[in-house]
Amino acid sequence: MSDLDRHDTIRAVHWRGDRLSLLDQRLLPFEERFVDCRSAAEVAQAIKDLVVRGAPAIGIAAAWGVVLAAQQDAATLDSAVRTLRASRPTAVNLMWALDRMLGLGSDVAALTAEAQAIQDEDLAANRHMGELGAALLAGGGVLTHCNTGSLATAGFGTALGVIRSGYAAGKISQVYAGETRPWLQGARLTMFELVRDGIPATLIADSAAAHLMRSGAVQWVIVGADRIAANGDTANKIGTYQLAISARHHGVKFMVVAPSSTVDMATADGAAIEIELRDTTELLSMAGKRTVVEGAQAWNPVFDVTPASLIDAIVTERGVIEHPDRHAMARLFTPGQH
Amino acid sequence: MSDLDRHDTIRAVHWRGDRLSLLDQRLLPFEERFVDCRSAAEVAQAIKDLVVRGAPAIGIAAAWGVVLAAQQDAATLDSAVRTLRASRPTAVNLMWALDRMLGLGSDVAALTAEAQAIQDEDLAANRHMGELGAALLAGGGVLTHCNTGSLATAGFGTALGVIRSGYAAGKISQVYAGETRPWLQGARLTMFELVRDGIPATLIADSAAAHLMRSGAVQWVIVGADRIAANGDTANKIGTYQLAISARHHGVKFMVVAPSSTVDMATADGAAIEIELRDTTELLSMAGKRTVVEGAQAWNPVFDVTPASLIDAIVTERGVIEHPDRHAMARLFTPGQH
Repeated sequence: MSDLDRHDTIRAVHWRGDRLSLLDQRLLPFEERFVDCRSAAEVAQAIKDLVVRGAPAIGIAAAWGVVLAAQQDAATLDSAVRTLRASRPTAVNLMWALDRMLGLGSDVAALTAEAQAIQDEDLAANRHMGELGAALLAGGGVLTHCNTGSLATAGFGTALGVIRSGYAAGKISQVYAGETRPWLQGARLTMFELVRDGIPATLIADSAAAHLMRSGAVQWVIVGADRIAANGDTANKIGTYQLAISARHHGVKFMVVAPSSTVDMATADGAAIEIELRDTTELLSMAGKRTVVEGAQAWNPVFDVTPASLIDAIVTERGVIEHPDRHAMARLFTPGQH
Repeated sequence: MSDLDRHDTIRAVHWRGDRLSLLDQRLLPFEERFVDCRSAAEVAQAIKDLVVRGAPAIGIAAAWGVVLAAQQDAATLDSAVRTLRASRPTAVNLMWALDRMLGLGSDVAALTAEAQAIQDEDLAANRHMGELGAALLAGGGVLTHCNTGSLATAGFGTALGVIRSGYAAGKISQVYAGETRPWLQGARLTMFELVRDGIPATLIADSAAAHLMRSGAVQWVIVGADRIAANGDTANKIGTYQLAISARHHGVKFMVVAPSSTVDMATADGAAIEIELRDTTELLSMAGKRTVVEGAQAWNPVFDVTPASLIDAIVTERGVIEHPDRHAMARLFTPGQH
């Protein structure tokens, strides 16, 4: 058992044969409780409610949702897929996993095998991306945003996978994590994973990132993605774009890590990506208690788009694209061109 | 009574003759409770604990703290001033107000008049800056950060004063306020003031600022300051620097509004400004409840420095400096040069 295996025992998505058990990420890090989903509709609701989140984990959960629908009544498969597809709009892994399942008809055994394959391939992709991304590092500090670890994927993580591999390879001395308002994925989930792994990690307010970069403490910003367009424009957690602007301003490098299931060659560029707006109570309340005066308006986009021009490297399991643009993306992701 | 007078009735600092009543800003917007300070030490503690905050309001409170010390025992004046001076390091208005009081000896009547003058001049400066800053606006949306309103000053506000004047003049259609982690001055205090005034205001996560700018909704970022160095470098609430970088990236203009008491010509540039680090529990907990796993480290600088090169205009009651640099600052703030 390698060091990495020992350190990566947490799993967000568990298939139990007749139900999908999801580690409830709304309660972490202080409570490890599972939500059991016994239908596609329950899986869709869990995705909507952020019981499970993270683009790859959403795709995997949705695939298992299709299996649940097929087990119960093959006639409901199409409507189950529609319900799942509508659960969240931005992460394309959801649509990708559903399309992959849709191609298999209603045979439960075939669907089960496919869902398992989607899950297994994601873990393998993360391990491989970890190595590819770590190879780009030259030592020093890194900053990450949101949670892109075991909790957001089948395991190991995308950006956090690169950080795990980079730390194991002695190429990272310190990890900084932005708390990621409003949902605090960085504070609650990423810090949980990093502390658990014994990786030196420091939490910062999202607003402190540029001040941190100016100090010279960070050499790379490493983030995940919810959708990568055909020209390399990348949708990711709100705040990612701001980090990319600050990184470029300070000469800090910017890396996006995502499996090929996050790449959407049918979307020409970032302007075509739908950005999810979530309920403003995420900003107007805290821990169930109202923090802002009644009558106040809020705007709560939970993703933004970082243009390819601000990205130094996109790391996928198919390879690394430095200075991404339409041509470099097509070479790796258009069938017949690689 | 003008519209502005009617709208600006909230006051953070109230001198009661034998005590200083401070509106407890830790409890706003849902509880309006006053903390009574009966000694300089109690005023210093209130400043330290953020009962009162905002660079000008801190200076005013400290001046009244000196009056309390003089009333009680003139022999303790020097040590009272030292205690007050040490309460917070970054906002220079504190040191400026104490130096102004120190020059007057121990005569209670003279000290009382001076503290009142400091308070009255701040309000007058804010009114004047409101007009000067509003004259720079050409219509559209503005983004502000932290709280720079009545609660942070003797009344009306610095950046929020410009916003009040600009809105009254029909030059602002929408105000966006960053929530300002970790202390939520924007969410709790600025939204409180704006909703109270009936100014159209929308709260955003600090991380959403660049995404907002990209949409074209914002023409100016308008912020206050805790210290402006001799070259125009400006210390302000953490996150201000990041906003300035994003503003420049998008061609959005960036305005700093502060009275001349915030200008520190003895500090050559931003590198010489001490940045306060506050307790990491501000990041690790929320509403008294721990949100981050035990064992986690955090870094909590509560100010940062925006270099003069990213600032389009510094508005003071002495006038407006566009494209600030050492020479422009000296023309307005070096005695004998204006």
